[in-house]
Amino acid sequence: MDDKNISQAVIARLPRYYRYLGDLKDKGIERISSQDLSKLMKVTASQIRQDFNNFGGFGQQGYGYNVEYLYNEIAKILGLNEKHNLVIIGAGNLGQALANYMNFERRGFLIKGIFDNNQALCGKEVRGIRVQHIDQLEHFIKENAIDIAVLTIPKDGAVKTAEILAGCDIKAIWNFAHVDLNVPESIVVENVHLSDSLMKLSYGIVNKK
Amino acid sequence: MDDKNISQAVIARLPRYYRYLGDLKDKGIERISSQDLSKLMKVTASQIRQDFNNFGGFGQQGYGYNVEYLYNEIAKILGLNEKHNLVIIGAGNLGQALANYMNFERRGFLIKGIFDNNQALCGKEVRGIRVQHIDQLEHFIKENAIDIAVLTIPKDGAVKTAEILAGCDIKAIWNFAHVDLNVPESIVVENVHLSDSLMKLSYGIVNKK
Repeated sequence: MDDKNISQAVIARLPRYYRYLGDLKDKGIERISSQDLSKLMKVTASQIRQDFNNFGGFGQQGYGYNVEYLYNEIAKILGLNEKHNLVIIGAGNLGQALANYMNFERRGFLIKGIFDNNQALCGKEVRGIRVQHIDQLEHFIKENAIDIAVLTIPKDGAVKTAEILAGCDIKAIWNFAHVDLNVPESIVVENVHLSDSLMKLSYGIVNKK
Repeated sequence: MDDKNISQAVIARLPRYYRYLGDLKDKGIERISSQDLSKLMKVTASQIRQDFNNFGGFGQQGYGYNVEYLYNEIAKILGLNEKHNLVIIGAGNLGQALANYMNFERRGFLIKGIFDNNQALCGKEVRGIRVQHIDQLEHFIKENAIDIAVLTIPKDGAVKTAEILAGCDIKAIWNFAHVDLNVPESIVVENVHLSDSLMKLSYGIVNKK
């Protein structure tokens, strides 16, 4: 299969499939038909079949899908069978919230370092990891094969830090700063703009009236 | 104008326009052409014009857009000219991070209460607001004209809590729990599934290779 041909919309749906299949697996369910998965996820069975056909199908019609097999296959497609070393930049509440979110580690995202420019936070331990000063970041990334940087700092610092990260050949930036980062194409950037999300919510409220 | 005819894709782009216009406004820039806005935001000028035409245009071709006017108009469309009372359910790191994010208040999202089912957290102050036990939630929502509930609790609690919220006629739920909520159509739900976002990042990394 050539992933390059797969639409962003399909990719964006994969984590949700993975989440539902994980729940089914935890419940000990071994097989599920696209019809039942469709009811559960509130998407059409034909969409499910179309989405899965991008990856070669995964299971016989009628006979249904093998839950664990499908779960593992989607994990592979999402790269969850590989370990990723990450650093969190910004040891405030959000950075700490992410550091303490166990699921990430279970899925192969290993938090190797936490950084902040606030000396008062340096030395403090977050989930057993000592917060280091941001001055140490560049050296640490190069020494520890870090591929993901999580940016949980205000936007001004984020832009400057993204430039440093680009210089370290980081593979990806998970950006929570409220700004669009200007980094080379080669760096994968996934933005979580919480304010944008809240504004969409607000739009939804006023337009329900 | 009839917002019902406006595509979700356009709506999803409005907060980003709002963000860029806010930055321009803060820099004291009074007018901007769709061409310059296009360069800045890395979207085509024709897309900008098409998006804005959904709302009646906002400004003369060539002459450019009045930044402050456009900023305020988009704020109105997004419902940011109205105040929204919200409660945060889950006083852990993520709940505290959101409570401490000043921008929300500046945009009219007023945090009226914070709740948790952990007795150890109850009574603790987060940004001057005393954490209450979740048992108080239903009464508090009805007494305080709360229209938005922010769910920053694990998924099991989230499903149950969403049912309670539905019973209180809450207008909207901003859901950070890693589960899709099953609430009536009348309730606006905006999901922030952090794990899904991280998986998309992971997919991006493995498929860059």
